[in-house]
Amino acid sequence: MKIKMSAAVALMILCLFLGAGGTYWAVGDTMKEKAAAYDKLASSQDSTATEQADNGEDAALQFQKLQQVYNSIEANYVEDVSGQELMDGAIQGMVGSLEDDFSAYMDVESSQQLMESLESSFEGIGAEVSMMDGRVTIVSPIKDSPAEKEGLMPNDKIISVDGEPLDGLSLQEAVNKIRGEKGSVVTLEILRAGSSETVDVEVTRDTIPIETVYSRTETVDGKAIGVIEITSFAEETAADFAAQLEALEAEDIEGLVIDVRGNPGGYLQSVVDIAGEIIPKDDPFLQEENRNGEKTPYFTDLTDAKPYPIVGLIDRGSASASEILAGALKENAGYELVGESSFGKGTVQKVIPLEDGSSLKLTMQKWLTPDGNWIHEKGIEPTIPVEQPAYYYTHPLAIEEPLKQDSTGSAIENAQLMLKGLGFDPGRTDGYFSTETTSAVKAFQQENNIEASGELTAETGELLQQSLVEKIRSQEGDKQLDKALDVVSQ
Amino acid sequence: MKIKMSAAVALMILCLFLGAGGTYWAVGDTMKEKAAAYDKLASSQDSTATEQADNGEDAALQFQKLQQVYNSIEANYVEDVSGQELMDGAIQGMVGSLEDDFSAYMDVESSQQLMESLESSFEGIGAEVSMMDGRVTIVSPIKDSPAEKEGLMPNDKIISVDGEPLDGLSLQEAVNKIRGEKGSVVTLEILRAGSSETVDVEVTRDTIPIETVYSRTETVDGKAIGVIEITSFAEETAADFAAQLEALEAEDIEGLVIDVRGNPGGYLQSVVDIAGEIIPKDDPFLQEENRNGEKTPYFTDLTDAKPYPIVGLIDRGSASASEILAGALKENAGYELVGESSFGKGTVQKVIPLEDGSSLKLTMQKWLTPDGNWIHEKGIEPTIPVEQPAYYYTHPLAIEEPLKQDSTGSAIENAQLMLKGLGFDPGRTDGYFSTETTSAVKAFQQENNIEASGELTAETGELLQQSLVEKIRSQEGDKQLDKALDVVSQ
Repeated sequence: MKIKMSAAVALMILCLFLGAGGTYWAVGDTMKEKAAAYDKLASSQDSTATEQADNGEDAALQFQKLQQVYNSIEANYVEDVSGQELMDGAIQGMVGSLEDDFSAYMDVESSQQLMESLESSFEGIGAEVSMMDGRVTIVSPIKDSPAEKEGLMPNDKIISVDGEPLDGLSLQEAVNKIRGEKGSVVTLEILRAGSSETVDVEVTRDTIPIETVYSRTETVDGKAIGVIEITSFAEETAADFAAQLEALEAEDIEGLVIDVRGNPGGYLQSVVDIAGEIIPKDDPFLQEENRNGEKTPYFTDLTDAKPYPIVGLIDRGSASASEILAGALKENAGYELVGESSFGKGTVQKVIPLEDGSSLKLTMQKWLTPDGNWIHEKGIEPTIPVEQPAYYYTHPLAIEEPLKQDSTGSAIENAQLMLKGLGFDPGRTDGYFSTETTSAVKAFQQENNIEASGELTAETGELLQQSLVEKIRSQEGDKQLDKALDVVSQ
Repeated sequence: MKIKMSAAVALMILCLFLGAGGTYWAVGDTMKEKAAAYDKLASSQDSTATEQADNGEDAALQFQKLQQVYNSIEANYVEDVSGQELMDGAIQGMVGSLEDDFSAYMDVESSQQLMESLESSFEGIGAEVSMMDGRVTIVSPIKDSPAEKEGLMPNDKIISVDGEPLDGLSLQEAVNKIRGEKGSVVTLEILRAGSSETVDVEVTRDTIPIETVYSRTETVDGKAIGVIEITSFAEETAADFAAQLEALEAEDIEGLVIDVRGNPGGYLQSVVDIAGEIIPKDDPFLQEENRNGEKTPYFTDLTDAKPYPIVGLIDRGSASASEILAGALKENAGYELVGESSFGKGTVQKVIPLEDGSSLKLTMQKWLTPDGNWIHEKGIEPTIPVEQPAYYYTHPLAIEEPLKQDSTGSAIENAQLMLKGLGFDPGRTDGYFSTETTSAVKAFQQENNIEASGELTAETGELLQQSLVEKIRSQEGDKQLDKALDVVSQ
């Protein structure tokens, strides 16, 4: 499943895959192993509040107060209340009081989604879907998947699943209906572009691998350059990276670009293993710091640096494990980093399962770069800053009433940036709908064979977005990648 | 203390007085009486979670889970944590899970502020203050107050209090320093406009009444019309209302306007008593509904309707108790309501003190209008809708860099509305800085004797706001009041 997307595209297409958004301990733990670890962790602490040593008396009073509030609400609130919801709220509020964006109480569903997002396969039909015009739409079937074998095609709309209409469901809810155990059969009612009647397609679900590493070679000035994209640090990512790096090296690459743009992170162990492939062992590639300020340096086993230059590619969507890798490339190995300042997440979480299937995602460590910098809320600076063209940073257009010349607003500003990115000069890009903007809109409409009114209609807005998504996906105009290839081949 | 302000003015001046923002049971309860009531309430419920009858087992499990999360955080979080803050967060989260904007856990300070906001006096020096240019500034000393007796004047800046500088404090923090027990002496370091040196002024604090009822007569078409403004429903409001109504009637008024614009509510008993003065007893003027859907109608003792017409004045800032009064005027007595749809708060809260001085503000009832309508999130519709001129609804201007012709943005839109309100036609009010807008800015600058650059500078923005506040305070252009006077004198 191809899920690598720029930030701009990500806004427009809600993908199946939920970003990991953090770096986690405990690679490959099953839920069962985690539960055992938790029991061990909890047993030393599972005393009641009144028995606690420090913080003890205060805590006991506070628990009593919580109990009083609970009782008052249950007895007196204007509506019937659910005890479960009150306590879920309490736990969320307790975790929220840490004011840490990365610690969270996750209910059963969120816990499962997080675990799934870090697995390297799922069971389903194997199609990337998105919501378009309110319909669940196939973006592309995954190669060799059941979806491809049964002939599902891009732009097919899924109307119902096993007879149940998808109307009104969120994309995630629809996906949950489409997914299911390997070997089970699901019947999809499909509406294909150009047809007014639906057809039923039976698909036997299977295990679908989720790929997180993509590689290819590019030839720059006669040199073979390897490009590896890592889209997240999931269970199999490090093994895939090692295999694909070996394949590239068999092709005698003379340089390597490692692209972690838009990569939200994943397992700590995954990035540790990847660092082991490319970062020399002489200096730490990472340090961990616990709450007492004690630092633990991490080293690789790699004796020699690679015989070819390496360049890292980062952007503001590169977070957590991506930043660990970028920091190692830059500060340990002295490689260049091309792109933009990264996200800035300098903490490591652990997922602590709770007995009922919910879990606590808790920040337990800071990590520092090889030189001991804590990049939290700062990010890693590229050594060679390169911004993408402005159209990479546009927001989705939501046009209800047509927008006309001599009006103003942020939707117009966004449309102007899109027009400019597509080669239709709108004159200005500050949100004022000038005569030049009207001309640009007309030219775009003519090229797309719709009425050349010069007004920004909903239809024009959708076409603008589609054209832009296509342009960004084609990597034509990817100035960061171009620069990285340029630098690594010098 | 004059605290009645339009919504527009309220945005610009942060006043001493914190709005009540709700309707509360229990008029005049002292904290002690409330604590006793609470003990009674709590004693019947003060069992541990495991002993509860319904919801019991679930709740016990949930309390255990909360305890586990508490222990995990305390043992493992990356920073040291305060048990008190964790539990405060839990209580806030529990109350937050009700998704009721009007139920809240209030810490000791918030609890005290709420109680003070509903008292009819406070102990201090008796001056309305606001933050202007980062300085605590006297807006006006209250009549006969210690502040007035010692000669404090509008626009005096308070630099320090008892030798402690106020730099960097919030307005509320500064107010807390200035307030104090009756009979105590406070030394204020004052900087007066036109002087570069400060003077020390000693003020002996006293009890300062907070007025919530203002009345006057206006003559319309030769008729004496009474106008009563109610700014909140505090402890003494109903008694003040009765006294001032009697005084107006002694002047043989031929009509009465009751203005509850911007009035956020207060004690339920207060509005019940005020209704008793003007709403006839034949039909309910209010109904209460508990969580079982049981309705309790409220009646007054008033045998006959007033011998003169009454008109209510409401706006989107009229909330809660104000809406109870407006609903009674409209649906019980058939009086006209002039203005805008009111805020829409159809619930009644009770403040339940907790043992440590914090408290729980909890929604315990709905209230319905005489005809049984629940106006929550809808508001009461005026029978005669009248909007204020657009400049009443502008937002504060925050101009950092001067704004110039041919630029766009919401700050420009706001400035255009302000210019228009002050009689300087900006040509358009959509946020595009046109040549006409430049001319209007220049004309305004000339009239205010500052450089006529035609650019929106920070200084120009501040002057615009000041001029607008003055205009709104003068009630010149108060179209709602004009209409109400017109209707009541027909």
